[in-house]
Amino acid sequence: MSIEQLLEKRERLLGPNNPLFYDEPLHLVKGEGVWVTDADGRRYLDCYNNVPCVGHCHPRVVDAICRQAGELNTHTRYVHVNILTYAEKLLATFDPTLNRMMLGCTGSEANDIAMRMAKLWTGGEGIICTNATYHGNTDLVMRLSSLFGPTDDQTGTIEMVPWPDSYRALNGLKGEALTDAYVAEIDRAIERFSQAGVKLAGMLVCPIYANEGLPNIPDGYLARAVAAVRAAGGVFIADEVQSGFGRTGRLWGHEGQGVVPDILTLGKPMANGHPVSAVVARGELIDHFRSNVMYFNTFGGNPVSCAAALAVLEVIEEEGLVANAESVGRHVLEGFNALKARHDLIGDVRGKGLFFGMDLVLDRDRKTPAPKETSRVVNEMRRRGVIMSSIGEHGNVLKMRPPLPFSKANADQLIGTLDDVLGDL
Amino acid sequence: MSIEQLLEKRERLLGPNNPLFYDEPLHLVKGEGVWVTDADGRRYLDCYNNVPCVGHCHPRVVDAICRQAGELNTHTRYVHVNILTYAEKLLATFDPTLNRMMLGCTGSEANDIAMRMAKLWTGGEGIICTNATYHGNTDLVMRLSSLFGPTDDQTGTIEMVPWPDSYRALNGLKGEALTDAYVAEIDRAIERFSQAGVKLAGMLVCPIYANEGLPNIPDGYLARAVAAVRAAGGVFIADEVQSGFGRTGRLWGHEGQGVVPDILTLGKPMANGHPVSAVVARGELIDHFRSNVMYFNTFGGNPVSCAAALAVLEVIEEEGLVANAESVGRHVLEGFNALKARHDLIGDVRGKGLFFGMDLVLDRDRKTPAPKETSRVVNEMRRRGVIMSSIGEHGNVLKMRPPLPFSKANADQLIGTLDDVLGDL
Repeated sequence: MSIEQLLEKRERLLGPNNPLFYDEPLHLVKGEGVWVTDADGRRYLDCYNNVPCVGHCHPRVVDAICRQAGELNTHTRYVHVNILTYAEKLLATFDPTLNRMMLGCTGSEANDIAMRMAKLWTGGEGIICTNATYHGNTDLVMRLSSLFGPTDDQTGTIEMVPWPDSYRALNGLKGEALTDAYVAEIDRAIERFSQAGVKLAGMLVCPIYANEGLPNIPDGYLARAVAAVRAAGGVFIADEVQSGFGRTGRLWGHEGQGVVPDILTLGKPMANGHPVSAVVARGELIDHFRSNVMYFNTFGGNPVSCAAALAVLEVIEEEGLVANAESVGRHVLEGFNALKARHDLIGDVRGKGLFFGMDLVLDRDRKTPAPKETSRVVNEMRRRGVIMSSIGEHGNVLKMRPPLPFSKANADQLIGTLDDVLGDL
Repeated sequence: MSIEQLLEKRERLLGPNNPLFYDEPLHLVKGEGVWVTDADGRRYLDCYNNVPCVGHCHPRVVDAICRQAGELNTHTRYVHVNILTYAEKLLATFDPTLNRMMLGCTGSEANDIAMRMAKLWTGGEGIICTNATYHGNTDLVMRLSSLFGPTDDQTGTIEMVPWPDSYRALNGLKGEALTDAYVAEIDRAIERFSQAGVKLAGMLVCPIYANEGLPNIPDGYLARAVAAVRAAGGVFIADEVQSGFGRTGRLWGHEGQGVVPDILTLGKPMANGHPVSAVVARGELIDHFRSNVMYFNTFGGNPVSCAAALAVLEVIEEEGLVANAESVGRHVLEGFNALKARHDLIGDVRGKGLFFGMDLVLDRDRKTPAPKETSRVVNEMRRRGVIMSSIGEHGNVLKMRPPLPFSKANADQLIGTLDDVLGDL
């Protein structure tokens, strides 16, 4: 079937406005490691997909799924060892205060639970998030997700603060003054809640502010923001759905920022594409939630999901993928910074492990966002066999998050192709 | 590891109040067809699990998952044929007005979307549900789910109506008068919304009222209830998460009730345990939702999920499982009615296809619910190798929903064991 026929069928069966990448959409049929192949047999270097974090169709994960799917797949109202083995292994990677786990199927479900857990624990309702984010798609979680349009929340329980942008910095500030200014925005949000008589429940942010555009976070900002929230009686929910599982060159996105979340949520790469998500939290918060809410998730924590998730953790460990993300990530950043020296369109280069943002601008002094050019770059890269996407408040940040087994050779192909595309623009 | 050690680990890693079946919880290790096996090698006849609807670990479904998981598993921002093949096959089973599909991972997600879709379409907020139900676990959907405790909804947008119980019938009524009385309750709910200035969005119910206790629905009730809702500007959402995919001896639970939903939701058995759910609706409702909400679900509609779901539909068709549910279901009902003649504890026997409710009472005249005895029966059946559970407003309805390949021989084991247990009680 031609791509045109497939697209017609898609619109007819699934309706309009189903997000689709690229002016010439890709019809993929195969994935392997960092490569995907389309229906014409053409291979693309995957610089976008963080979900298949240990590589597309990693045989260890596929085997784990097949073996367990052929043995038993049932809900957690029976005892099964897989969920316990997984919980022990996963929880051992966190600060010891984060000692309980709940499993679901999607990051949205995890954030929905996390918000309710924070509200129940604190007795508050108010949630602080940033002004350009996305945390998922349930009715509750969508109230935070302003990145794709107005959230139309009329409950008065959401306060959005400016995300900690050190490139288009608040009032042009720098250094500690910039950190002070962004922390003051948290204080102001707390004050607005207070004046409206809304008790604070907590703050929910991605610890690397990935959807906002992956900024270089002003020094000490996150720890100070969290301290302000806690001082006002709220808890800190870290949405690690994108930042988790080695993506940043550390196992968790909050590591190295001097702060331990009260609750954190996991998803996307957790089982390499098999639908699994988690809420990890301080025991007392999970116990309080569980004691007050009859929460049961039919598919959550089933033996197949847990086998897949366990295989992912094992592969990350055995193949040294966190260290690879760190070292290849540094190599990519060096390459991108070299590109910046040659291409004026590149306003800012950002990276953490194997997660990169490249802020494209029309004018380096004014930092005028270049969303059209960003779209052209993304589409031209696809034509030249390298897939990525864009993100950010202004839609002008190239977003790159290849599978973690990304090699230096893969990196050089990405850098070289991007150099050519920027040169030909 | 002993069951005691596993339970200790479970409490420590997952927290308290994780629902678990039976006084002596089952540690299952294997499933095959209608059988599950525990860690000691003991086999149990599965009369409970509707999720593995074509049988535990059906080789066709396992193969479909393995094959696709080894080929490609990615989100729907690329074109893939599996979701389109599945959509065509699934939609062909419904009334032609139900012509669009959205895929997610859990029934909760599907009902969350369905409620928002109804609200967006009608411009209303008010949802009618029953007073003893469960539709899922997101913040929004939990507001309807009063079966496991108070919902504590303070939005004024939920009206609960008495579920259509023809056993403990409203005011002791019968026949058309009973239908009239339950429909009048819908009218009253609409009137309460109207007086409170809440515009009606719709009614969300399971078309067989499974969680309420699977009643013999008063003649013509559902169609008249839906007509009342539509006349007041609302839409009808059928939650077919339990009633779908052949369970009732028809493919869909709403069939034969003289009504076509505007929106319906699917889940649990949809992919035999692989996390897949769907919203199916009239095209204009999905198009309106999609045009107003940037909805994207990372795992929803991935090629592996669609391969699994497609295999389930094919197996249901090829193995004649709907007809089997109908004929074996009738056999079970006959057997249960024979038991009722011998055991006074049985107040009422209900069944639709391979979904059975048996209402246990202390006193047949007063119909006094017997929840303690119900629990004893469930636990004693488990000891004798047949697993089931209980449900209903009073916790006194034996709940049985075996995998669809349940045979007459399986049925006779169920009936015989239940006869023995009731005799020994």
